[in-house]
Amino acid sequence: MATSSKGPNLAPPMTPWNQVTIIGTGLIGGSLGLALKQAGAAGRVVGVGHRRSTLDLAIDRGAVDAGTLDPAEGVAGSDLVVLATAVGLFEPVVRDVAGALAPGAVVVDVGSTKARVVRALEPLMPAGCAFVGCHPIAGSEKRGIAHADAGLFRGATCVVTPTDATPAAAVDRVAATWQAVGMTVLRMTPEDHDRLVAESSHLPHVAAAALVRALGEGAEPLVGTGWTDTTRIASGDPVVWRDILATNADAVAGAIARYQEGLEAFRQALVAGNAEAVQRLLAEAQRRRDGVVGA
Amino acid sequence: MATSSKGPNLAPPMTPWNQVTIIGTGLIGGSLGLALKQAGAAGRVVGVGHRRSTLDLAIDRGAVDAGTLDPAEGVAGSDLVVLATAVGLFEPVVRDVAGALAPGAVVVDVGSTKARVVRALEPLMPAGCAFVGCHPIAGSEKRGIAHADAGLFRGATCVVTPTDATPAAAVDRVAATWQAVGMTVLRMTPEDHDRLVAESSHLPHVAAAALVRALGEGAEPLVGTGWTDTTRIASGDPVVWRDILATNADAVAGAIARYQEGLEAFRQALVAGNAEAVQRLLAEAQRRRDGVVGA
Repeated sequence: MATSSKGPNLAPPMTPWNQVTIIGTGLIGGSLGLALKQAGAAGRVVGVGHRRSTLDLAIDRGAVDAGTLDPAEGVAGSDLVVLATAVGLFEPVVRDVAGALAPGAVVVDVGSTKARVVRALEPLMPAGCAFVGCHPIAGSEKRGIAHADAGLFRGATCVVTPTDATPAAAVDRVAATWQAVGMTVLRMTPEDHDRLVAESSHLPHVAAAALVRALGEGAEPLVGTGWTDTTRIASGDPVVWRDILATNADAVAGAIARYQEGLEAFRQALVAGNAEAVQRLLAEAQRRRDGVVGA
Repeated sequence: MATSSKGPNLAPPMTPWNQVTIIGTGLIGGSLGLALKQAGAAGRVVGVGHRRSTLDLAIDRGAVDAGTLDPAEGVAGSDLVVLATAVGLFEPVVRDVAGALAPGAVVVDVGSTKARVVRALEPLMPAGCAFVGCHPIAGSEKRGIAHADAGLFRGATCVVTPTDATPAAAVDRVAATWQAVGMTVLRMTPEDHDRLVAESSHLPHVAAAALVRALGEGAEPLVGTGWTDTTRIASGDPVVWRDILATNADAVAGAIARYQEGLEAFRQALVAGNAEAVQRLLAEAQRRRDGVVGA
């Protein structure tokens, strides 16, 4: 019998988790519940939310098998706990549930920054339990359990950020879990992750917001699709992005400084009337971008 | 009989041009030929190109009625001449055709910057002929006559930039022509146009290119739709954009400087750990953008 070398069978075989608790059943948490069940990666999925109506909808959608408003009750007996709330809630939630974790339980998060999260949560793990920082780079403009989608993770990248203290077995099993829902897994340190994600995600957000603010009064009728595309992410939720940027402040500030220098190269070339330099800067950007997006 | 207050009948009645010459039958020139004929705004359309095959295709597509490789021959007898080549060719082309213009002919361009163009071309007009700077803000990722589309201009804005020397009758007739092909016309000075378009179009291009250049090695697998959208225009043609930026260098350099200052506000708020300030900057950008795009 031939083995398929691509498609859903690409993921290595993994030991399914007996019970997975997902704390925060929004778009990411709900989609993960659906995907884990579809992949046969979880025997049972328990959802923890802060509104009964959301949990009921998660059950209706088949994203979780049961739901509770009490995090400590929710994690009891689970061998995997997924933190899928806003990043700012990870630490209070873990303080709340640490005493109720099953022996040997693995805790992961899905936050978009890692160094501060890993530094805060790793020391809170009871002996025998492991924390594995994760950033599944999947999302959507849409939010909430109503838009949960088992295919959300397919074809996307998940960064897993173990430290010297993370048990290798836990890292491997977590990596296999993300692969089971269709993701490509990259392993790197939390600090490397944060620097790269500052450049690839957080700086673009700041750049887009600053670009909107640079539009003078009266220029509105002149905006075209270039401006609209370039600034699209500036319409994102300011509170969510405040928290993301705050948890990665050093790396983002560094990326902004390098970006300001890059802009200065363009400004000086224009002021000097150096069309060749302008063209070279543009051509290098075009080549790099086409390489990145595979054009 | 009721008069429709919206739709294609919104444009005021205009006196059709007897013959329009379009120099440069690419996407914009070809689309304009189609649109003028569809609107009944031109008795006859002559195309001027530098390749016979392009002109033949323009004729096949119905964008022009006749074509020639000789600009001076092309403008003979036309009451409207449209410059639709690359901006860098406007001045040599006008020097070439000035002596062949019909008495009273009106010359317009479709370039995306105005102050340098107007300053260069206005003095080249023979007595009795008028130059009217125009920037129809319509375009597409696609290029070339093969993608010409009579609907390209519909619903978009055209900026018309008369000077104190421009005859009012010519400005009015040109404005009515753009309205006839479905555009909303704004009138402003060439300098105001260039400042606003620097903020709405040229700065975004520089910002996108610099953002690509700020992506460190190894960050490629982490880019998501945010990065891809924000940098999309950086895949534009470096030579075309070199020329656009070069003809608006002062205004673009000023816009870059203001953008650098705006980024500095974000950087300082992050370094200071001032989450409130970060949120306020993001929220203001979100509100402004949603206002501009009408969300």
